[in-house]
Amino acid sequence: MKTSSKISLPPGNMLNPLPVVMVSCGSSPDEYNIITLAWCGTICSEPPMCYVSIRRERHSYEIIKRNMEFVINLTSKELCAITDWCGVRSGRKYNKFQTMDITPLTADKVKAPLIAESPLNIECKVKDIIPLGSHDMFIADVLAVHANEELLNKTSHALNLEGADLVSYSHGNYYCLGQKIGKFGFSVEKGKSKK
Amino acid sequence: MKTSSKISLPPGNMLNPLPVVMVSCGSSPDEYNIITLAWCGTICSEPPMCYVSIRRERHSYEIIKRNMEFVINLTSKELCAITDWCGVRSGRKYNKFQTMDITPLTADKVKAPLIAESPLNIECKVKDIIPLGSHDMFIADVLAVHANEELLNKTSHALNLEGADLVSYSHGNYYCLGQKIGKFGFSVEKGKSKK
Repeated sequence: MKTSSKISLPPGNMLNPLPVVMVSCGSSPDEYNIITLAWCGTICSEPPMCYVSIRRERHSYEIIKRNMEFVINLTSKELCAITDWCGVRSGRKYNKFQTMDITPLTADKVKAPLIAESPLNIECKVKDIIPLGSHDMFIADVLAVHANEELLNKTSHALNLEGADLVSYSHGNYYCLGQKIGKFGFSVEKGKSKK
Repeated sequence: MKTSSKISLPPGNMLNPLPVVMVSCGSSPDEYNIITLAWCGTICSEPPMCYVSIRRERHSYEIIKRNMEFVINLTSKELCAITDWCGVRSGRKYNKFQTMDITPLTADKVKAPLIAESPLNIECKVKDIIPLGSHDMFIADVLAVHANEELLNKTSHALNLEGADLVSYSHGNYYCLGQKIGKFGFSVEKGKSKK
């Protein structure tokens, strides 16, 4: 495979592409808010755990710190403009559910609301808050997961997440997922092995 | 916007899509290894910091713990089969650089090698290791970033990361990035504002 000359860039946040999610928080409708984040990820398989990193000056920071709970709502092509808007505007000035006309649903295990329009919702309970610099990292256990019913195959009960039109975030842009290259392990499948 | 009935799934790692990267480690050629990971992300902007989560039984776990350094190498469509192979096979059995015929380059700030064929390399120094369960989270400072020269616009010097054909990982599958929906802030651009 061809290699290229390398140029050095300043140390920065160049890990791409990233997830982009709407994090909902608050324990009652007057406290509900949504923050859009790409600084989020999976950190442990058993138990299932994830994190979100949030600047201390953001409106949702204090809400999540107070309640120690949040919901990660995956986003879709259809929801992308709302997702972007929730990342640009502040909950100090807007009731985001009302302004964007989206629907809070009662969660099972946390007081923070699910976003009904999101294809998949992940209820999270904060276990630890780690101050890092501009951002604090909220480390959380996954307590419950909900998906849109039509994403479940009616016979196999397998989740067809491809049907959700999820969105990826790379270097400041939102993208649909494109061509499927293969599934995990494709390089060693019988007859297709690279080595 | 239409909403759907929700069904509950067991608590699990359903945050998607995720990054997928090759993490290179080791301080000398006989120790060099590559582990492919989706449990990785950005955790702080200033200073720039990221994490990788690794199972304790993985070969790279001890190498990274010993050296407290690693390099995150972004992956591309062209590199995807090699990326997958490095995630399926163990460094205990294979010299992955030799077997996959890829090229280690000397990094600037760490002893772990850059992968020459990767479009973008992020040198990382481990600051803390947090045991979580199946995985330990390695929290790291970004010390240096390198990109393929042809990704830099010759006049503006802007990085054109779209030219790298980066790969996203969602629910067990590798995808190219597809249709660009917009850039951060598109929902409030003049004349296009949702509200």
